[in-house]
Amino acid sequence: MNQVPFKGVIAYPVTPFDDNENVDIPLFKKQVERLVTAGCHGIAPLGSTGVMPYLSDAEKETITEATMQQVAGRVPTLVGVSNLTTEKTIYHAKFAEKAGATAVMIIPMSYWKLTDEEIVKHYDRVASSISIPIMAYNNPATAGVDMSPTLLKRLLEIPNVTMIKESSGDIQRMHDLRKELGEDAAFFNGSNPLALAAFSAGARGWCTAAPNLIPELNIALYNAVQHNDLDSARDIFYKQLDLLQFIVAKGLPRSIKAGLDLIGVDGGGFKSPLKPMREHEIAELGNILSALESEIYSYQS
Amino acid sequence: MNQVPFKGVIAYPVTPFDDNENVDIPLFKKQVERLVTAGCHGIAPLGSTGVMPYLSDAEKETITEATMQQVAGRVPTLVGVSNLTTEKTIYHAKFAEKAGATAVMIIPMSYWKLTDEEIVKHYDRVASSISIPIMAYNNPATAGVDMSPTLLKRLLEIPNVTMIKESSGDIQRMHDLRKELGEDAAFFNGSNPLALAAFSAGARGWCTAAPNLIPELNIALYNAVQHNDLDSARDIFYKQLDLLQFIVAKGLPRSIKAGLDLIGVDGGGFKSPLKPMREHEIAELGNILSALESEIYSYQS
Amino acid sequence: MNQVPFKGVIAYPVTPFDDNENVDIPLFKKQVERLVTAGCHGIAPLGSTGVMPYLSDAEKETITEATMQQVAGRVPTLVGVSNLTTEKTIYHAKFAEKAGATAVMIIPMSYWKLTDEEIVKHYDRVASSISIPIMAYNNPATAGVDMSPTLLKRLLEIPNVTMIKESSGDIQRMHDLRKELGEDAAFFNGSNPLALAAFSAGARGWCTAAPNLIPELNIALYNAVQHNDLDSARDIFYKQLDLLQFIVAKGLPRSIKAGLDLIGVDGGGFKSPLKPMREHEIAELGNILSALESEIYSYQS
Amino acid sequence: MNQVPFKGVIAYPVTPFDDNENVDIPLFKKQVERLVTAGCHGIAPLGSTGVMPYLSDAEKETITEATMQQVAGRVPTLVGVSNLTTEKTIYHAKFAEKAGATAVMIIPMSYWKLTDEEIVKHYDRVASSISIPIMAYNNPATAGVDMSPTLLKRLLEIPNVTMIKESSGDIQRMHDLRKELGEDAAFFNGSNPLALAAFSAGARGWCTAAPNLIPELNIALYNAVQHNDLDSARDIFYKQLDLLQFIVAKGLPRSIKAGLDLIGVDGGGFKSPLKPMREHEIAELGNILSALESEIYSYQS
Repeated sequence: MNQVPFKGVIAYPVTPFDDNENVDIPLFKKQVERLVTAGCHGIAPLGSTGVMPYLSDAEKETITEATMQQVAGRVPTLVGVSNLTTEKTIYHAKFAEKAGATAVMIIPMSYWKLTDEEIVKHYDRVASSISIPIMAYNNPATAGVDMSPTLLKRLLEIPNVTMIKESSGDIQRMHDLRKELGEDAAFFNGSNPLALAAFSAGARGWCTAAPNLIPELNIALYNAVQHNDLDSARDIFYKQLDLLQFIVAKGLPRSIKAGLDLIGVDGGGFKSPLKPMREHEIAELGNILSALESEIYSYQS
Repeated sequence: MNQVPFKGVIAYPVTPFDDNENVDIPLFKKQVERLVTAGCHGIAPLGSTGVMPYLSDAEKETITEATMQQVAGRVPTLVGVSNLTTEKTIYHAKFAEKAGATAVMIIPMSYWKLTDEEIVKHYDRVASSISIPIMAYNNPATAGVDMSPTLLKRLLEIPNVTMIKESSGDIQRMHDLRKELGEDAAFFNGSNPLALAAFSAGARGWCTAAPNLIPELNIALYNAVQHNDLDSARDIFYKQLDLLQFIVAKGLPRSIKAGLDLIGVDGGGFKSPLKPMREHEIAELGNILSALESEIYSYQS
Repeated sequence: MNQVPFKGVIAYPVTPFDDNENVDIPLFKKQVERLVTAGCHGIAPLGSTGVMPYLSDAEKETITEATMQQVAGRVPTLVGVSNLTTEKTIYHAKFAEKAGATAVMIIPMSYWKLTDEEIVKHYDRVASSISIPIMAYNNPATAGVDMSPTLLKRLLEIPNVTMIKESSGDIQRMHDLRKELGEDAAFFNGSNPLALAAFSAGARGWCTAAPNLIPELNIALYNAVQHNDLDSARDIFYKQLDLLQFIVAKGLPRSIKAGLDLIGVDGGGFKSPLKPMREHEIAELGNILSALESEIYSYQS
Repeated sequence: MNQVPFKGVIAYPVTPFDDNENVDIPLFKKQVERLVTAGCHGIAPLGSTGVMPYLSDAEKETITEATMQQVAGRVPTLVGVSNLTTEKTIYHAKFAEKAGATAVMIIPMSYWKLTDEEIVKHYDRVASSISIPIMAYNNPATAGVDMSPTLLKRLLEIPNVTMIKESSGDIQRMHDLRKELGEDAAFFNGSNPLALAAFSAGARGWCTAAPNLIPELNIALYNAVQHNDLDSARDIFYKQLDLLQFIVAKGLPRSIKAGLDLIGVDGGGFKSPLKPMREHEIAELGNILSALESEIYSYQS
């Protein structure tokens, strides 16, 4: 088993709904295909972008299976299986493993703030139920709990917890992870506007929904860093920064689907209470994408 | 239909689990009975204290029905029916109404931050699906979204949204609600250490898990305010403040269950990942409760 | 020596400047006289409202002497003597004592965040240089350092540090002070919109610039609390809340001087970079004051 | 006149005091000499490290003159002249210009939060009083006011406001500045632990007290970035990160002086209420510096 099966740009597809607010699987598969074809280095269904917490168990399972079928081993897959209770997290983790996922991503969702001991036990019980690697995901804004570098280091002592996704938005966290974990630390950046700083700090990959709209620029940034070319990386980063800031500020599902519409791709509808982005925001996004068009062209092989 | 069926102390029972992490209904009914017998003015199952977000649909339904059976109309009931999706919120609201709930409480749970429009539409759709009153609940710390006094005022324009529970912990919010809504505003305090300030500011009631442990002191505070006796209210408040601060700081389900153990009442077990409070914290709670014993005695009729 | 010479409404006069940005002493004396005549229970020159940090040493001394002359012992005086360095704080504290101040107020101004030890030593050295009582003032927003209830309790062990002014804006701080210090705690509220909650919590007095504009309502609130009449206190508080919120939101020197202009009193000019309030804000303040006019009349004896 | 006379590492000397808490000028000159000799690209007296706000006017003037004498034109100088009032800021700016400073640094110190208009007018009046360039300094933590990228852009329209120092600690601010101002933006980083991210984002220089202790590593980081060698920059940054985090966490004057003691350089005493660092902290700093010794050696030419 490859303990750290990811690097580079890990892309998060949206989950499309039909008019009755049911998941539209054929449309979902098209999203996945676009991301693989564009050259993304990994596919991560059932993330925040895929509105995982809003889905029923059955919907999550269908999405997981559809991803495996469509990716068909071309790149590794990272399936979100987080749940408030340990029991259901185990359930979904096992399902993902059986379906063929390369790894699972787990954020310690919490309504009641968990203690460090509760979090460690939660990961430990899930980890011992499966054999594939786990990416521990820190995102205080959505999880309601902030895992310190010290706690994350403790989690990495669990055999198949091998990767960390950091989305606190604070570059110092990545510095601290690298200090705590050493040069070989497998930490991934989950904060889009931090992409340049995170790669500079040594992040191994970038978990992002941006490749739904601008995969060429996202991948070009990674490549520049790989070539130790900071000047190019900076240049490429600033080209895409407006878009990265916009999709974070407006919420990923809304903004990515609006962007897909603008570039002529059907991203499907929403599940209530989530609604499409407002018109003046769509216009703003349109301006950002138009300005990027010539840039993108120059990075296509 | 009484549009504002609550005042005074609205008590939140815990949800007890057995050794297999299944809800223990007989034990739950005993909790409810204790609260009614103690003189609480309302009973609110499936709140945060009752770990509602961790329960399955079936568990929520059983809890709702058990509450109705046990309360048997002696005091009004307020059932938590919040859910991430509009569809499931409607489902649970309808169930509660059919089961006989006096009113339902709804917090706009959110993973993706909702816009004001999405929140209004969410409440509007649920409200039009039922006939009983709704208490709109603001708690940015757990919901991930903060409803401004202006938005709350908008929600009150929906016919059966008639009450507000404010748990942001900021007394200025209650001042603003009273200013916006006038003297007859039906706002309730959900922040325990704010009990005195909130009643001083005109709160109609106090939504609290504290009556599981010290109902006499909670009710005595309300009575003092009703009698326009600020000096007594202040005195009674400071007697219970240590406990109110403790249960909030340590998390309600953990601390209430530990407190029940300490006073010889079986509050049942937990659902993972939640675990019991640590020993040194239990000892601290024991000291607070011991110090209160003589006080409580003096407020018992 | 009376160790706690204050209770009730302690009023903060503005410092008027002439067209050359020099302090206008005759105008300052008129401000002081208005506050004494209105029935305020104490006068506090060289506070935030009096823009103390912007004044030269000579200006501070002139203001101190002018206050003593004008008050002439009718009510106690509380002179602000805070400074970044210990040496200059001692200098101004001695000057105030010699000039006849009843007490001095000291906030631990800081550019570099001070340790608890540095703060204790700072107060200790100043306290041992004078014989009059000291009010320790906590205001993290302006001082850059937040003194915990524990630290404040330590300061009160210094013989002539006998009073605390709390302006953190968090009612829990007052609860904690009362818990730490007991029923006889001499704590004063410095946050205007917290006036009702603070008196409910047991504050002995209210340090405020509001009496420059609405002394009748400020004093009436204190009297209602003294009479243990919470219903009246609440009623009187809500009448003045708009004004209290406005002057805090817009900055005290600007808003008080604009308010004085609106009621026909000359409050003088500003020292750069501070400038008068903008016109639309002055209009807003005018509306608030107009709405209050009839209310104020009913509270005048 | 060179409008942007700085790049690279701009070093901030401490201000040494003797036993009577008077400035020790001979010792100060030695500090300056060490920084120039070590290869720093600029010298900035009267910054936060130099405890400027705690100094009298006379002390500031003596420090300014001593800097000019000692630097003697070998590198450009940047003198801190900030003051609460516009009048005194002008006074010190003029003094610095006359003494031969290359440029002055100005932070909008505020006790009362300034409006954007007041800030622009403040800079405008100072700028029109002198001919040398001004570096506008944003540091919300110490100034009490946060200048947005939009406001900073406005300030840059004033002819001799030509540089920005950003110390908010948020890398997104630098991204926004670069976006707003273009590739030629002259922004400088003032947050030590952000040094790598800031250079990656395009910062022209680094304003720092660290060269008092580890000039070789600070300068090597800048050189690696200049050589477009991200891998080396990352490597060099992580070597010094512990020290950078320590001096920020503990306060610059205290930690730099303790560090100087540890490496056998006399940094002088403090002005009350500031006191030396506590022993256990000094020991911690000693460990960090020991670990760095061999590293530093390898970067010395």
